[in-house]
Amino acid sequence: MRIAELSRRSGVPVPTIKYYLREGLLPAGELSSPNQASYAEAHLHRLRLIRALIELASVPVARVKSVLEAFDSKTMSTHDRIGTVHRAVTPSRQVTADDDTRAAATAQVREFVKGRGWIIDPDAPAIATLVDTITALRALDRAHLAEQLGTYAEAVERIAEMEVAATAARGEPDQIAESVVIGTILGETLISALRLLAHENLSARLMRSTTPLDPGSTDSP
Amino acid sequence: MRIAELSRRSGVPVPTIKYYLREGLLPAGELSSPNQASYAEAHLHRLRLIRALIELASVPVARVKSVLEAFDSKTMSTHDRIGTVHRAVTPSRQVTADDDTRAAATAQVREFVKGRGWIIDPDAPAIATLVDTITALRALDRAHLAEQLGTYAEAVERIAEMEVAATAARGEPDQIAESVVIGTILGETLISALRLLAHENLSARLMRSTTPLDPGSTDSP
Repeated sequence: MRIAELSRRSGVPVPTIKYYLREGLLPAGELSSPNQASYAEAHLHRLRLIRALIELASVPVARVKSVLEAFDSKTMSTHDRIGTVHRAVTPSRQVTADDDTRAAATAQVREFVKGRGWIIDPDAPAIATLVDTITALRALDRAHLAEQLGTYAEAVERIAEMEVAATAARGEPDQIAESVVIGTILGETLISALRLLAHENLSARLMRSTTPLDPGSTDSP
Repeated sequence: MRIAELSRRSGVPVPTIKYYLREGLLPAGELSSPNQASYAEAHLHRLRLIRALIELASVPVARVKSVLEAFDSKTMSTHDRIGTVHRAVTPSRQVTADDDTRAAATAQVREFVKGRGWIIDPDAPAIATLVDTITALRALDRAHLAEQLGTYAEAVERIAEMEVAATAARGEPDQIAESVVIGTILGETLISALRLLAHENLSARLMRSTTPLDPGSTDSP
């Protein structure tokens, strides 16, 4: 198809498509004439993946390229590809807290991972995020949530197992690698939205039954 | 305490604290002399909350103010406060897809919420995020993940119930409102990190047992 049709079918403006081509995010089309390139379904597919990364996962364009490179890698194992995706979607965060709090959080995470028997690269970005989050919870006197790590992990493991099974069922390696990229990123958005809705629902029910969780009922005359 | 001590104990630089004071994110200290303000534990607490919002939830400073206003509101019910927090932490996303795909996703979400008997404001930002995510999954031929909405929801409901119970146990309304803000935001970071770790662990185990999920074992000679 011509670039105009690619734009129409993907909903991505032609100038944006040309930008992706220049940046090497999108492979060049096949030259049907010296100044005329034609694009295949694969281009449409890649374009949708790029939009999902940028629009839904808020992955910076600069990072999208490294994700796609891992994603296209013929030498990298799926495991290493997943690692690259994880690094791309895990924003590096630094939370301000005193050393003792951070040390306690680090120890808790180490113990936790060991306790669950998880095989994890100690340098995995998610480990740093976990330490930062628990550090913040402790600094904010919310250690009781950090102590619920097991409950969080059990629920998340169920999700991960379902996702991996659904992904493994996708057939050949390339399909799987693509599913991993999409599933890791869109699955997270899915979970985040569903959790907010579950909270809203529980909150609405609690409000009806005017429990202490609803000061509104006492606030308003 | 003086601003210097507030800075030392919170780990936030004095100029940043002054910026928060100017922006009205942090209430003014009590004037102990015409040019000398003293700050209480409440200021330290609020400062930590601001840092958690900015550093961990990546909430823009402009939005932090609206979260804190809801958070301090004496007239707003906890339910409405939660809504404000949700709007602050839910980035507005627009994914490019054709109308049919979006219509199908919208219908699926409506059916799903109805099916679970969730009490949800149809204009809740998380509903829009859910529709966008499912639209993207369908556009990327990953409808099979969207069909797992129930599995995601069950796991997420368990988490939400634990979180609400832990929050309700926090005592008086103000404590609860603060827990809701912190729990909503830090809990999400916690879940996100744990999910990536669960995936890494499953991937590592699958790689060892060289299932089809690991092309690496065949890629490398």
